[in-house]
Amino acid sequence: MSSTSTSLSSGHSAQLIDGKAFAATLRNRVREEVQAFHARHAVTPGLAVVLVGNDPASEVYVRNKAIQTHHAGMRSFMHMLPETTSEEELLGLVDRLNKDPEIHGILVQLPLPAGLDARRVTNAIAPEKDVDGLGEVNAGRLAVNLPGIVPCTPLGCLLLLRDQLGDMTGLHAVVIGCSNLVGKPLALMLLAEGCTVSIAHIHTRDPAAIAREADILVVATGCRELVRKDWVKPGATVIDVGITRTTTPDGKSRLVGDVAFDEVATVAGRITPVPGGVGPMTIACLLSNTLAAARLQIEGKLP
Amino acid sequence: MSSTSTSLSSGHSAQLIDGKAFAATLRNRVREEVQAFHARHAVTPGLAVVLVGNDPASEVYVRNKAIQTHHAGMRSFMHMLPETTSEEELLGLVDRLNKDPEIHGILVQLPLPAGLDARRVTNAIAPEKDVDGLGEVNAGRLAVNLPGIVPCTPLGCLLLLRDQLGDMTGLHAVVIGCSNLVGKPLALMLLAEGCTVSIAHIHTRDPAAIAREADILVVATGCRELVRKDWVKPGATVIDVGITRTTTPDGKSRLVGDVAFDEVATVAGRITPVPGGVGPMTIACLLSNTLAAARLQIEGKLP
Ligand SMILES: NC(=O)c1ccc[n+]([C@@H]2O[C@H](COP(=O)([O-])OP(=O)(O)OC[C@H]3O[C@@H](n4cnc5c(N)ncnc54)[C@H](OP(=O)(O)O)[C@@H]3O)[C@@H](O)[C@H]2O)c1
Ligand SMILES: NC(=O)c1ccc[n+]([C@@H]2O[C@H](COP(=O)([O-])OP(=O)(O)OC[C@H]3O[C@@H](n4cnc5c(N)ncnc54)[C@H](OP(=O)(O)O)[C@@H]3O)[C@@H](O)[C@H]2O)c1
Repeated sequence: MSSTSTSLSSGHSAQLIDGKAFAATLRNRVREEVQAFHARHAVTPGLAVVLVGNDPASEVYVRNKAIQTHHAGMRSFMHMLPETTSEEELLGLVDRLNKDPEIHGILVQLPLPAGLDARRVTNAIAPEKDVDGLGEVNAGRLAVNLPGIVPCTPLGCLLLLRDQLGDMTGLHAVVIGCSNLVGKPLALMLLAEGCTVSIAHIHTRDPAAIAREADILVVATGCRELVRKDWVKPGATVIDVGITRTTTPDGKSRLVGDVAFDEVATVAGRITPVPGGVGPMTIACLLSNTLAAARLQIEGKLP
Repeated sequence: MSSTSTSLSSGHSAQLIDGKAFAATLRNRVREEVQAFHARHAVTPGLAVVLVGNDPASEVYVRNKAIQTHHAGMRSFMHMLPETTSEEELLGLVDRLNKDPEIHGILVQLPLPAGLDARRVTNAIAPEKDVDGLGEVNAGRLAVNLPGIVPCTPLGCLLLLRDQLGDMTGLHAVVIGCSNLVGKPLALMLLAEGCTVSIAHIHTRDPAAIAREADILVVATGCRELVRKDWVKPGATVIDVGITRTTTPDGKSRLVGDVAFDEVATVAGRITPVPGGVGPMTIACLLSNTLAAARLQIEGKLP
């Protein structure tokens, strides 16, 4: 258990779940395993990241992914294509990357510019190179409990929860938000862990009442500070996936989550902060997935 | 709405959901659509059913599927293989059926004899011919909300619920049992309908308390008469998937569900009986899926 006790402002009783520290440990472990993998096979795992267009946030994400891949001892290939790229050109690139033996993982940064079908492109990535786990084959493997590559952000949440709680059998997990990227795959992962799982979303009539049942409460809505103190059962473990950028009265930019941290931290047993909670786990899990994909391709099975 | 009011023994207030009548209507509709499809394309949809070994219950199921396929105006092909069939032989047959233009749907009856990997065989069926919807590609399409072929029994439950309730947005659906065959795909379908969804199973600590929250309660555990009166919110819609064969004191054979029908029918708003509820829907949905698969292959999209 790698949690650290908070020494936050008075009234906080929750333990802080330090995703930043956990992610650093995970990245180190991946780096060591990449070396061992290279020693066994004389192969260096390679990740290709594809960016189409000039979305500034996406440019930052893609650059961070490339740098951290490199730091983990893997090869990193960036493909930055103009906004005007056609779907056929993009599918052609994915096809070449699928066939390229130096590439073990392929990630197409979303969102894509209008006119490009993200679903079609995502499904075109070979399942064994689909390190974002967003293609239909990997989604299906997760749904039927087969080994596969799972999406990075929910995997990050799961690793934090396993580290904090160990065996989750029989715990009631409530997931608020059910996107294909975060909420839905995480709900399926928690079901596979033996949790009773409830899934709430925009149409849920009394989300607070359902949230209050949770031993594990995961919030991934993009709705800032949605979850208040009275939504949380005392002692619950709270995972806040949300990231919203806001401006404070003094004009500074600040990230806030989907959980009203200060008040929820007075009742929760454990809680992830924003930033420094789930956020850093996503790229660390991408590195871990890239190594896993390389092992799948070279050793014939997932670790 | 095709529900009929019960005139059962006194004290029952629930409306009976007549799956037998609904299934008959669905089979008729499929028969008409098969004719229209034939008129458009001069193609008759064909279903291949594969049985390995001599399990008597499976023999009955397979025969019923074949007869009803035939009654719906489609071609029905039966492949009955000995217990000694190897996995390679079975995969070889699936491969030939995948390539056979007369075959639009392939169903391998489960369970398979020991030594045959059901998952490998199921995944070998071409996704567009996978009329049981159990392969990983169709499971993934369901998980990410793409058009696909979905498993027959949960589809049957969904069609009954749509017929009874219309728009289910915001209703709380509780699914007890989370197999890949029934509970899990149904939970994903109800999520796609806009329900808040809770999934309970063998490790759930207080299933009665969760069940009592349900506007829609689906039970698919194989645990006879698990759900009692005090598990059900007054007015809830109860779908009983369970089928257990028992022997009455006078030596007669009888089917019972996962719901204690007599007592639950005094509180539920609507309820499926066993037999005559979900049971007849499964084969009707198989026929519907076979036609859908033929349309996907010939017309390029699912209806
Ligand atoms: N590395 C990371 O830490 C990371 C990675 C990915 C995402 N995120 C963050 O996580 C959040 C969610 O991301 P996403 O991609 O899952 O978003 P998304 O695709 O917009 O999905 C949001 C989900 O939350 C539901 N929802 C929205 N408002 C709600 C409300 N008021 N009450 C209940 N449910 C509500 C939506 O319901 P409907 O579908 O019914 O509309 C939807 O299921 C965002 O803040 C995003 O920035 C962080
Ligand atoms: N045409 C039809 O009407 C039709 C078709 C298919 C199935 N069925 C019937 O539906 C039932 C379920 O079939 P299945 O294939 O889904 O069965 P299954 O594969 O055995 O799955 C049963 C599920 O119920 C859970 N469960 C078992 N006992 C429970 C209990 N006491 N409390 C809570 N959860 C419990 C199990 O949990 P764990 O996974 O955690 O053990 C599992 O998730 C059977 O009676 C079957 O005959 C009917």
